[in-house]
Amino acid sequence: MMPMGWRYHNPVDVHFGCGSLASLPSIVGERSVAAVVFPEAASIGLVDRLAGLLGDRLAAVIDRTEPNPDVASLAPLYEAFWNGTTRIDAIVAVGGGSVIDTAKALMVGTEDGRFASLVALLATGKAFMPHAVKPLIAVPTTAGTGSEVTPWATIWDRAAQKKYSLFLPQTWPAAAIVDAELTVSLPAKPTLAAGLDALSHALESIWNVNANPVSDTHAVAAAGDVLVVLPKLMDDLGNLVLRERMARAALQAGLAFSNTKTALAHSISYEMTLRHGLPHGIACSFTLPMVLGRAIGVDRDRDAVLSRVFGSDLASAPARLTAFLEGLGVRTRFDDYGVTDQESARMVSDALDGVRGRNFIGATAADPRPSSPQA
Amino acid sequence: MMPMGWRYHNPVDVHFGCGSLASLPSIVGERSVAAVVFPEAASIGLVDRLAGLLGDRLAAVIDRTEPNPDVASLAPLYEAFWNGTTRIDAIVAVGGGSVIDTAKALMVGTEDGRFASLVALLATGKAFMPHAVKPLIAVPTTAGTGSEVTPWATIWDRAAQKKYSLFLPQTWPAAAIVDAELTVSLPAKPTLAAGLDALSHALESIWNVNANPVSDTHAVAAAGDVLVVLPKLMDDLGNLVLRERMARAALQAGLAFSNTKTALAHSISYEMTLRHGLPHGIACSFTLPMVLGRAIGVDRDRDAVLSRVFGSDLASAPARLTAFLEGLGVRTRFDDYGVTDQESARMVSDALDGVRGRNFIGATAADPRPSSPQA
Repeated sequence: MMPMGWRYHNPVDVHFGCGSLASLPSIVGERSVAAVVFPEAASIGLVDRLAGLLGDRLAAVIDRTEPNPDVASLAPLYEAFWNGTTRIDAIVAVGGGSVIDTAKALMVGTEDGRFASLVALLATGKAFMPHAVKPLIAVPTTAGTGSEVTPWATIWDRAAQKKYSLFLPQTWPAAAIVDAELTVSLPAKPTLAAGLDALSHALESIWNVNANPVSDTHAVAAAGDVLVVLPKLMDDLGNLVLRERMARAALQAGLAFSNTKTALAHSISYEMTLRHGLPHGIACSFTLPMVLGRAIGVDRDRDAVLSRVFGSDLASAPARLTAFLEGLGVRTRFDDYGVTDQESARMVSDALDGVRGRNFIGATAADPRPSSPQA
Repeated sequence: MMPMGWRYHNPVDVHFGCGSLASLPSIVGERSVAAVVFPEAASIGLVDRLAGLLGDRLAAVIDRTEPNPDVASLAPLYEAFWNGTTRIDAIVAVGGGSVIDTAKALMVGTEDGRFASLVALLATGKAFMPHAVKPLIAVPTTAGTGSEVTPWATIWDRAAQKKYSLFLPQTWPAAAIVDAELTVSLPAKPTLAAGLDALSHALESIWNVNANPVSDTHAVAAAGDVLVVLPKLMDDLGNLVLRERMARAALQAGLAFSNTKTALAHSISYEMTLRHGLPHGIACSFTLPMVLGRAIGVDRDRDAVLSRVFGSDLASAPARLTAFLEGLGVRTRFDDYGVTDQESARMVSDALDGVRGRNFIGATAADPRPSSPQA
């Protein structure tokens, strides 16, 4: 299943470590930047900290960001950013995946400066040459998204019940600063959702038709770390050593799926988020045991990589993964979320036909295995 | 010893797989290129193959390259390249480490188009902003150098008995094509030397003050593969599956040491090459058991990573590595190469003080362990 030929490319300059936010001024250099942050960033002192680091190089602060950024709310941010009079050379995004995705939407300038023109380009589903691009420095404050080392942003259109994927050779962050000190005050729920998002990225990059030896090494390291560290961290949220291990796992999961994209679990997740309001990290992880059950046995090479994560007894791995998730308080059955068997069967079938679903190694198997009884 | 904060950055777009040379035209696009190759490239049909792939986009062929490129021979190549009348947008280097290093020297244009001006800049030992740069696509025909995924070139000055390191943010190859089919006809001696160079890159990136979790994952995978695959390959040089595994190991060793640089074994090697004429791959690997002996016990974290390569019985690892090398016909004692005990002690001491030697975790240890009895 692993293709004979493969490609790996991740141009992001990664700075990792507790305290590494201090490297921001040297990365910014003499450039004038806009910071993209979450709305609470000023009240928790983060904006002051950025101002202290950057001085008058911090030319603007954009904090009217929202979770799962929507075309309706992005439009005014975008147009203020591109049509303003302040000189901006680069963007510094400090926040979770939604903040970094918002910044990626802002990076790409359209000829007329209107956001609708960008959405129209995205709606074609084709690559395009952007009219203008501002480089991005991404600083995650959660350990999960991996968005700091991928070129993708998900832009939602709730009114139309759909989503767009932004992905251009120009939308890789130039640099990422992964400083676990920025994650240490994150409450339990988003910590859990982010950690499970990372697990999903790692596993989805393994049971993926685009997997390769480089993505596999990152994915195996990341998945193994999440399985060990996340339960400990949920009992000890202030532990900086555990926070740093989760930050590294999320980063390595990002380095893995940056080259494979995601697969079936993510394909299912979008509908669960759009129609059932499930947070992304839960929506893309509660089906992992079911998807794992479908992945096992499809391809010997992929089984070998899954064994590096789950041990040689792969047959019991879906049940163990179910126990792992349930132990963290995450329900793993569709009907736990009010989705009927009929609806979930349709959802999985649609997801297998989706762009991400087709990355799943089981999507094209002649005789797909039934889902495991645990899911 | 592993620093709390670390940085990983490798922007090279890697295309891997048997037959992946076929991706060259799409990577080149509409650009006009010069091919830098080894002198025998035309006679073995490689130049015709490049011409077949690129058509009239192949605007020049530079084949007067030599092993361990020297300032004396580079100067005329460089000046013909930069002062010629043919439009060249990019360089395609197809060959071993010396060919790729030659291409990196050609990449960097000086204001007056003279090579002496480049050497003068290199002699300062400082970074500089190049006057002009041509992007490089690197296609290795040996499995060892890793030069296709590093920004470094070694330029020798035999007349002055010294070497220069070229390293700029601009000298990363834009893309690498790692096609093991190109290595399958490589004779035994260069196959062995290249394979051991890769082993040295992997191990030197582990016992390195710049090691980090990303470089470690690549290095462990690479070293483990070389130890298993290289002896099999030496008995079966035409085996394309083994060639591909060695190509992958060499690539991953490159991805590892691209972010750590090398250490003590390489620091020693330069003098062994300059003064004793030893091929680079042998010069940088015959001391590996001795250096391994010095590395073990310095740092618990580094010992743990070395155990991922050599198993938990680290005490016997230097003897096993000696047996591995001697089994491949590589002598592991300085006096095997006519170097007296006194001279070798001075050489190791000088090497520990060298730029690369200072990357060795044992260089700054308060009480360096004696070298193992095997070495």
